[in-house]
Amino acid sequence: MWGGRFAGGPSAVMREINASIPADKRLWRQDIAASRAHARMLVAQGIISSADGEAILGGLDTIAREYAERGIVEDFALEDIHMHVEARLTELIGEAAGRLHTARSRNDQVATDFRLWVRDAIDQVDAGISAFQRALVARADEHAAAPMPGFTHLQAAQPVTLGHHLMAYYEMAARDRSRFADARVRLNRCPLGSAALAGTSFPLDRAAVASELGFDAPTDNSLDAVSDRDFALDFLMAATQTSLHLSRLAEEMIIWASQPYGFVTLSDSFSTGSSIMPQKRNPDAAELVRGHSGRIAGCMTALVMTMKGLPLAYAKDMQDDKPPVFEAYDLLALSLAAMTGMVAECTFETARMAEMATTGHATATDLADWLVREAGVPFREAHHIVGRVVRAAEERGGTLEQLDAETLAAIDTRLTGSARDALGLAGSLASRTSHGGTAPSEVAKRVAQAREALGMER
Amino acid sequence: MWGGRFAGGPSAVMREINASIPADKRLWRQDIAASRAHARMLVAQGIISSADGEAILGGLDTIAREYAERGIVEDFALEDIHMHVEARLTELIGEAAGRLHTARSRNDQVATDFRLWVRDAIDQVDAGISAFQRALVARADEHAAAPMPGFTHLQAAQPVTLGHHLMAYYEMAARDRSRFADARVRLNRCPLGSAALAGTSFPLDRAAVASELGFDAPTDNSLDAVSDRDFALDFLMAATQTSLHLSRLAEEMIIWASQPYGFVTLSDSFSTGSSIMPQKRNPDAAELVRGHSGRIAGCMTALVMTMKGLPLAYAKDMQDDKPPVFEAYDLLALSLAAMTGMVAECTFETARMAEMATTGHATATDLADWLVREAGVPFREAHHIVGRVVRAAEERGGTLEQLDAETLAAIDTRLTGSARDALGLAGSLASRTSHGGTAPSEVAKRVAQAREALGMER
Amino acid sequence: MWGGRFAGGPSAVMREINASIPADKRLWRQDIAASRAHARMLVAQGIISSADGEAILGGLDTIAREYAERGIVEDFALEDIHMHVEARLTELIGEAAGRLHTARSRNDQVATDFRLWVRDAIDQVDAGISAFQRALVARADEHAAAPMPGFTHLQAAQPVTLGHHLMAYYEMAARDRSRFADARVRLNRCPLGSAALAGTSFPLDRAAVASELGFDAPTDNSLDAVSDRDFALDFLMAATQTSLHLSRLAEEMIIWASQPYGFVTLSDSFSTGSSIMPQKRNPDAAELVRGHSGRIAGCMTALVMTMKGLPLAYAKDMQDDKPPVFEAYDLLALSLAAMTGMVAECTFETARMAEMATTGHATATDLADWLVREAGVPFREAHHIVGRVVRAAEERGGTLEQLDAETLAAIDTRLTGSARDALGLAGSLASRTSHGGTAPSEVAKRVAQAREALGMER
Amino acid sequence: MWGGRFAGGPSAVMREINASIPADKRLWRQDIAASRAHARMLVAQGIISSADGEAILGGLDTIAREYAERGIVEDFALEDIHMHVEARLTELIGEAAGRLHTARSRNDQVATDFRLWVRDAIDQVDAGISAFQRALVARADEHAAAPMPGFTHLQAAQPVTLGHHLMAYYEMAARDRSRFADARVRLNRCPLGSAALAGTSFPLDRAAVASELGFDAPTDNSLDAVSDRDFALDFLMAATQTSLHLSRLAEEMIIWASQPYGFVTLSDSFSTGSSIMPQKRNPDAAELVRGHSGRIAGCMTALVMTMKGLPLAYAKDMQDDKPPVFEAYDLLALSLAAMTGMVAECTFETARMAEMATTGHATATDLADWLVREAGVPFREAHHIVGRVVRAAEERGGTLEQLDAETLAAIDTRLTGSARDALGLAGSLASRTSHGGTAPSEVAKRVAQAREALGMER
Repeated sequence: MWGGRFAGGPSAVMREINASIPADKRLWRQDIAASRAHARMLVAQGIISSADGEAILGGLDTIAREYAERGIVEDFALEDIHMHVEARLTELIGEAAGRLHTARSRNDQVATDFRLWVRDAIDQVDAGISAFQRALVARADEHAAAPMPGFTHLQAAQPVTLGHHLMAYYEMAARDRSRFADARVRLNRCPLGSAALAGTSFPLDRAAVASELGFDAPTDNSLDAVSDRDFALDFLMAATQTSLHLSRLAEEMIIWASQPYGFVTLSDSFSTGSSIMPQKRNPDAAELVRGHSGRIAGCMTALVMTMKGLPLAYAKDMQDDKPPVFEAYDLLALSLAAMTGMVAECTFETARMAEMATTGHATATDLADWLVREAGVPFREAHHIVGRVVRAAEERGGTLEQLDAETLAAIDTRLTGSARDALGLAGSLASRTSHGGTAPSEVAKRVAQAREALGMER
Repeated sequence: MWGGRFAGGPSAVMREINASIPADKRLWRQDIAASRAHARMLVAQGIISSADGEAILGGLDTIAREYAERGIVEDFALEDIHMHVEARLTELIGEAAGRLHTARSRNDQVATDFRLWVRDAIDQVDAGISAFQRALVARADEHAAAPMPGFTHLQAAQPVTLGHHLMAYYEMAARDRSRFADARVRLNRCPLGSAALAGTSFPLDRAAVASELGFDAPTDNSLDAVSDRDFALDFLMAATQTSLHLSRLAEEMIIWASQPYGFVTLSDSFSTGSSIMPQKRNPDAAELVRGHSGRIAGCMTALVMTMKGLPLAYAKDMQDDKPPVFEAYDLLALSLAAMTGMVAECTFETARMAEMATTGHATATDLADWLVREAGVPFREAHHIVGRVVRAAEERGGTLEQLDAETLAAIDTRLTGSARDALGLAGSLASRTSHGGTAPSEVAKRVAQAREALGMER
Repeated sequence: MWGGRFAGGPSAVMREINASIPADKRLWRQDIAASRAHARMLVAQGIISSADGEAILGGLDTIAREYAERGIVEDFALEDIHMHVEARLTELIGEAAGRLHTARSRNDQVATDFRLWVRDAIDQVDAGISAFQRALVARADEHAAAPMPGFTHLQAAQPVTLGHHLMAYYEMAARDRSRFADARVRLNRCPLGSAALAGTSFPLDRAAVASELGFDAPTDNSLDAVSDRDFALDFLMAATQTSLHLSRLAEEMIIWASQPYGFVTLSDSFSTGSSIMPQKRNPDAAELVRGHSGRIAGCMTALVMTMKGLPLAYAKDMQDDKPPVFEAYDLLALSLAAMTGMVAECTFETARMAEMATTGHATATDLADWLVREAGVPFREAHHIVGRVVRAAEERGGTLEQLDAETLAAIDTRLTGSARDALGLAGSLASRTSHGGTAPSEVAKRVAQAREALGMER
Repeated sequence: MWGGRFAGGPSAVMREINASIPADKRLWRQDIAASRAHARMLVAQGIISSADGEAILGGLDTIAREYAERGIVEDFALEDIHMHVEARLTELIGEAAGRLHTARSRNDQVATDFRLWVRDAIDQVDAGISAFQRALVARADEHAAAPMPGFTHLQAAQPVTLGHHLMAYYEMAARDRSRFADARVRLNRCPLGSAALAGTSFPLDRAAVASELGFDAPTDNSLDAVSDRDFALDFLMAATQTSLHLSRLAEEMIIWASQPYGFVTLSDSFSTGSSIMPQKRNPDAAELVRGHSGRIAGCMTALVMTMKGLPLAYAKDMQDDKPPVFEAYDLLALSLAAMTGMVAECTFETARMAEMATTGHATATDLADWLVREAGVPFREAHHIVGRVVRAAEERGGTLEQLDAETLAAIDTRLTGSARDALGLAGSLASRTSHGGTAPSEVAKRVAQAREALGMER
């Protein structure tokens, strides 16, 4: 494969550390597609004959069929997927196979294959996030007005609706999709034709190859083209952020499913038991999604560090680009599917949520706002007054609503009239009509927009 | 500050771990700008009086002047920049200050301030990358045709031009700018008016506030708005990739400046000496740029991990968002400035580069391509033949060009006629005219486009 | 400072990126200590005169006094702490100051200073972890027999005691201390005398210097000595693991303080309020401790990446070793202090914990074990039988203990006699007497051992 | 497997995300060993009958034979290796198999299995590092006196010997071994018998099980025992540091093999060629070793992040502990083997190294030291004088040694007599006799100690 240059062959250790076929065989479809486009262009430009071109295309078809049916037999001596394909092509069509590698190198070939793979992965992930959004929106629609405690610092803060809470994840997912979309635009340039590092003297039509492979254009600098792995980092970074969002929902699912909360019951299909404790019903899928965020971030860290300080152009360190991307993709795809299923199938215990919605004196802010609005008290002062009201309720061991009018008036004479009404749950929710607020009317509006954006039927 | 709720005060340790003022005082300009916009909107909506509004705006002006002139005296008891401003405002204008916090919370306030700061940082970084690009393009223009060895695996591979090599970094920098631009679009939504987590019952005009602060629109979900730090992660991830690119050029500068290479001499202004070795001339700035890529990636890792598994909405963990972003910005800005200066001021030792451009039998591929083109040999076979030519040259201890016609013909009878011409440096370079190739004509074309894109005069 | 080598001076950017004084001024005590030891040895070996030695030691004393009283005025032109000290020494004692740098370089000097600093940091952290252990043990002693639900997957699993739970963190902390102790042993070799990278021709007594500075011995290879930062990585890695343990307890504190749990009430001294919600009582310190684990891990990642691929010997990248170590130390020290305070001062709501200890059918395993022990049923079969018992209880909406004898017998005829007793809380706890088990007697034993190990009085 | 608790089964996605068998089948030897120890103890304590015990041990033997011969057929429905073994055992011996799980849980079982695996991995890695040390010491012995340029900042600094340089890596490797040894001590406690999280009521003899499995003692807290993964982190952190050291040597190999350096020629067995450039001879193995440091650090980051903030006791996130450890082990073992082979088989081009040893005026420090020693000049002043000497040499375009006596004397009158002798290479090397210095005599001494420590014959 390396020609007449070497007297001795590689050692066993060298063969093992050097072979990338266990990982890069996943690129076979992309490798064959890129070779087809390259061969067609070579013919069109008169660089190889039509007969050779046809032999090559026919051979590649055969190989594609073989791989699809029987898989790939790894041979460490053939190093990588490119050499596996080329070796088989030589078996199939003889000398003409040797003309396919005209005006290209494995450097631009792998850069092209891997971009094609990552582009497909982006499209798959986008579909996965979109499905996740649908599940969220459907459940948010169902529970647009269902009260639950809104938390900050995991302390009851103000009542919100479950639909509003779920729609927060819809927003995160929308940003995730935009991040992958941006990555796709930046990725979509074709390196093929950059050859080893310097371009080539053959009269290529790089634009034609780019176009056939669905790229927007060829890359503009051959050194950059073979030493660039930004597209892989973009993918890993977008995957990390998506996974972080999933980890937050997973954390909530785990806490909500915990007995003291009791906010959610996961379906049997997303619960597991214990080998020792017969009563267990564990949210394993949520925990795995949460855990996977660590591994996906680890994949990103790996490639970031591997790319540090590499001189131009191609360096073999860059062979370590694929395992982290493949692993991150697999983990993210599975995480998305699992979380989509969990959200779609779980039972939200809305009665329990509503019961807890006013714990922690969660309507205290409403009373402060009432003082501002109705009694003209500056907010800071209102905040202090209500702080004393809360302390009074705590000393009595009850809720704010249980305080009687006299007690309120004793704390501050302005706490009269409709003050106590401000402490009610339904009124609190309904009042938060600022854009993006938790008022059921606002939530319903945003759900409707989301349905529209996702093409969901009513 | 927390009102009438607490009997005891915080412990000293609590005060210290809780205070964010040492870090977030950098947000003072943004905090005041956001308060001004909020105050104006409260007046316009009739939520506070014009008189109060004017007092607030006047007070904020005074504070801005004080901070600009005298800096900020940190007071741990006042926790953060928001409370420092509010406390001073209260001193200045009394009760009206207490009305400014109507319909907002520190949760949406800090989210707004920090977005404004990161947006400014993006704009600064974009200017820094753009300056770096100008320096690259100017030097590439100068050396568009200067030969140097192109390396893969740091082994001489094929000749390229120095201009082509420098333009590879121009491409990376262009992607870096597009990444920051994407981040800026995603960031540019205004959280103010989301209040603590649930929105508010006051009749806000969030669109007006967003518009005054230069945002495209208000955010759409209040829970998401106060618990989202994607924009900080986007910044850190883009910074990491930019820094990785700089680390690669830094590595090259260090290797090139090393005596055995001698490809570059850094200017005195970017060199340092030694406290013990009087002869030293060290590329410290390049090493620091390379080292900083580790710290910037560390900043990103920090926030990725900190955000993992946080339940909605705001959690105090998120206070740890600012130190990594500030640190990464400072390191990146300095790295860009240093690398720009190094590139602009260094002396490229072009004679030495040219001398080395044909070492390592770097034109061997040209001979293989000649066999394909002129003798119709399949590339794979040509590759083998030239491998034997290389071995012959090595055994004689000379270069490919030093092999005479007889030796070539003895290796393969087709190696006749113009074969030896294929081994020349200038011809090799000039021939690589494929799009993005290293031919000086191609490099000049791309330099001209870059000059145009950057608005550089000729 | 770099002598007569340079015509031009550094640019402003160069000065800024190069200056480490803002960070390394924290090393001043170590720098002066190392210089004192070096000077004494130079005199003892006859390399400098006694008079010069005395002048140097006197000057260093003066500088130490000045720094302690007035702090250090940073001068970027003097780069680092070594040069600040040397410049001041020259002002104070003139020419003799120039003799102090005989047979040393900043390369071995900073390696020595930084090791001394990290060694002190290790000792401080060890004291901090030890204090944390005392707080844990004291509370565990108090609650050695207090029942609470033991969780796996945050689902009620089996009852445990609060003391047992707290003692789990004691074990983690013990491992943390051993990790720092191991790091200290590995660190404790003195690099001074390695000079720039190659050792020196002056007749040094490196052992004497090592001994005076409390090192076990001098380092054995001068190239390694100036290019090694393992000790900083060891510190960061140990800090990361300690911080991870704290993050787990922090997570529990946050969940336990949440209203639906109500397992703990943090003291006022470790709680914070809200600027908008008057009722809030937030576990900010716990959240910051949890968040800090991300930043500490980020510091470790930074140095790991910075050290990657650096050729020997000293490289300026290594100047980026100090900021992450300083930051990690500060964050860890504060985290330990905050967590120690939180544990010592919080109120464990033991009645609520006990109430929840049997939720989730947490004694189901006890019934399975009873079947194994009393009826000779294989465990796997017993596990299935009890699974049916749990389902029966769930269908009735009650607890296991509420099932009557008939129901049990109907599920399996062997469920008779003392079977129902196995479902009791106290018996369950008391029975788990295997080594390290949760039986109060076992917990008390382990608490006693810990008290002994920590030298705590009864 | 989870008994009678569940009505519905897991979904396909759940089955896939939940199954750990593809990864944890690597634990089969450890799982069977731990089960054997547990079974023997159950018999000895009278918890199960001898007959059952014998059936279990016989069945486990059969399974071990089957796995060794035929591998493991993965069945996602059986989740993990523990269930695969148990299911097969049930097929083989029937009901008795159900008694094996008495008094244990998968939580303590996997913790035990994994510790056993990591302990084996530590022993393997230690052997690998030791082999690497032998290769280094053998080559250092060979080249103890061979001059080469010592670099700082990759600038020629002072001459050193190649043996000295190689021995720097011996020191790093020694620290690496000590780090793994420390990890092994901390790991070597047996969790088995901690059961699910709370210990058990069966009268276990945990010490006997621990002893049979080669552990020093059982763990002391059952909650900690099942939720602790410190041992995996210790392994990953030690692996990361080892890998960083290898990355530094890899970087040097790559730079040294580069044509402008020409310091080393890698053996054919550790070189690769190019698919396009027939002359190439690439140091791929070194690049892969360097790249792997990124992936190994990524594995560590993954587990660090995954463990963050997990409440006690076992959480399913922890299932993500094994893939990073397995991957890091595989990469590290391969990296060590490759680097050992490269070092053992490469040709150091000592003539070229010697030629470059005095470039960059590398003996300038020797002249400064001469001024201190022979003329009593303070070092700082000597440093300035020699700086002017260097500038004079540079202006003449020659080396320091080429300056004649008059020129030296014109720069400073004290530069007379033996001054020029100080600039010689051999004298410079021989003079650096401080402990750990580069004098060949010192290097030989340290090599001899290393041979002794490694048990290498002469």
